[in-house]
Amino acid sequence: MTSPPVVAVDVGGTKIRAGSVIDGVVDHLREVPTPAAAGARAILGTIAEVARRVIRDTEVSTPDASTPTWRIGIGSAGVIDPDTGTVVSATDSLAGWAGTALTAEITARLGAETRAVNDVHAHALGEALAGAACGTQSSLLVAAGTGIGGGFIAENRLLTGRHAAAGHIGHLPVAAAQGLPCPCGGMGHLEAIASGPAVLSAYHRAVGDQGPGGPRVSTTRELAELADSGEAPAQRAFEQAGRALGSALGGVANVLSPEVVVIGGGLSGAGELWWVPLREAFETELIPAVRGLSLRPAQLGQDAALIGAASLWSSGRVSTDETTMTSSGELQ
Amino acid sequence: MTSPPVVAVDVGGTKIRAGSVIDGVVDHLREVPTPAAAGARAILGTIAEVARRVIRDTEVSTPDASTPTWRIGIGSAGVIDPDTGTVVSATDSLAGWAGTALTAEITARLGAETRAVNDVHAHALGEALAGAACGTQSSLLVAAGTGIGGGFIAENRLLTGRHAAAGHIGHLPVAAAQGLPCPCGGMGHLEAIASGPAVLSAYHRAVGDQGPGGPRVSTTRELAELADSGEAPAQRAFEQAGRALGSALGGVANVLSPEVVVIGGGLSGAGELWWVPLREAFETELIPAVRGLSLRPAQLGQDAALIGAASLWSSGRVSTDETTMTSSGELQ
Repeated sequence: MTSPPVVAVDVGGTKIRAGSVIDGVVDHLREVPTPAAAGARAILGTIAEVARRVIRDTEVSTPDASTPTWRIGIGSAGVIDPDTGTVVSATDSLAGWAGTALTAEITARLGAETRAVNDVHAHALGEALAGAACGTQSSLLVAAGTGIGGGFIAENRLLTGRHAAAGHIGHLPVAAAQGLPCPCGGMGHLEAIASGPAVLSAYHRAVGDQGPGGPRVSTTRELAELADSGEAPAQRAFEQAGRALGSALGGVANVLSPEVVVIGGGLSGAGELWWVPLREAFETELIPAVRGLSLRPAQLGQDAALIGAASLWSSGRVSTDETTMTSSGELQ
Repeated sequence: MTSPPVVAVDVGGTKIRAGSVIDGVVDHLREVPTPAAAGARAILGTIAEVARRVIRDTEVSTPDASTPTWRIGIGSAGVIDPDTGTVVSATDSLAGWAGTALTAEITARLGAETRAVNDVHAHALGEALAGAACGTQSSLLVAAGTGIGGGFIAENRLLTGRHAAAGHIGHLPVAAAQGLPCPCGGMGHLEAIASGPAVLSAYHRAVGDQGPGGPRVSTTRELAELADSGEAPAQRAFEQAGRALGSALGGVANVLSPEVVVIGGGLSGAGELWWVPLREAFETELIPAVRGLSLRPAQLGQDAALIGAASLWSSGRVSTDETTMTSSGELQ
């Protein structure tokens, strides 16, 4: 393995997670809250600070090693152009993030060469390199959580698309979401029925749980507990979200025919209540030519985005060619 | 231009069309009915015969030229694996076509090296090389006619997918088709509301035009004439098909973010009645990051598949790299 040591950073709406990735092993993890409301300068400062700490931790733990030339690999929320390293656009959850010259700013702060890609795209690269899609040349990774994003890899290359905007699987129109507003401003998109917040909203609609005392459950996690305890409306909210996602992914599989579809993100921990209708709906939609397509849970958890971000330095910009990486976590 | 002279053959369910493609110019066109019910041997014999005639016509018209080494490029209905040159699967409209070793059989008959790809994939290659997507690196071609197929090109490479099955855009589940059976055996797919036969069926459902005397209109062309003459149910059938296609393509554009979406196939001649709702629905679905995406009519008509099939010999298997081709038709 000749890839340089990388500090990989996963920049999300609520937290920034970073670790060293050396010879494919993720280590010296750190996690801090994202100063999401404080603007781009604060976020950049936090990224630089956490990266500095990872470098220091790594160098302290291997004092005999000569100081290496570190590189920085970032997977960030927002539409990230990997060619220019800029934030093309971002939702309001990261104030002022759109337009940030992400890689240039981090290089200026750390003196280290930096590459960046969208966080879900990094996730897809990670699972393709070392996770559930390892060994395939084409895969579709779907992260279902606060939003529903995707990353499609064909012939070992991540598809980033015009304006680096590819992967917005949550914005497929679907029958189950008809009439429901989508965070993008549109109507009837998958995300409006199948994201975490959408599951919660569906439950609130079903039980009328929006009285003056406020809703009885306010997080997807609480709702999952209710569902596990057998509450029917909570169960139905997850079932309907799983079914909508499975159906949409079956349709996308008919269009892309990848070797494998990998499902990650927070909702993928929701259990059989969500997975069973998801699988069923997925398989129902597949045309004969595509049948037998493998649908798998993601394997690397939060490390996927770090491994994917680090791979920007080991296997070409957004390629999974000629690289063997392993996670320090689930795979070893 | 150093590409060899190619006989390009477009094998459809009703007709086989062939022509020479030399230095990017399509010429010496021939068209014969497909012996679709007579089995693979008959179809292969017809392909070989029409290719022989094109070669003879070309050589007669240029008697001074030394006899070139001809290659054969085929775009065929059915799922075609371009690596093996076999028909992976096909609908019943081509009896016994599935399983045919297409390129090997044609080489055996003609003594000429042969390459093959799916006909809609050939169409996509043709439009990318010399038509509406010329000059782009990524494009989505959709052919809307008897079925609804697609070809997606990214980084100048046609995506063929696992089992060469990519491109089945007609088999996206869509709200407008809920409850309608799809030719694939599934339910509620785009093709069930937006293909030519689906438009006809929608009209028949709307007017109850299925009495003992049989339906008043029995082809999409007749229905288009009725719509042009102002009959409201005929107009609504086209409008609803256009809207369903546009909405689905907007969703796919959010996932793939190509540089351009190109619409061809028989329905693309249906006029503003179909195009206006198609464009409107397409643009309505686009997320901000994808907005401004160009939606264009195909330019090359039936020559697209020939140019695409010929390109299998000039620009790598399914690539549009380093090739400049022009149509002998609309572009000159």
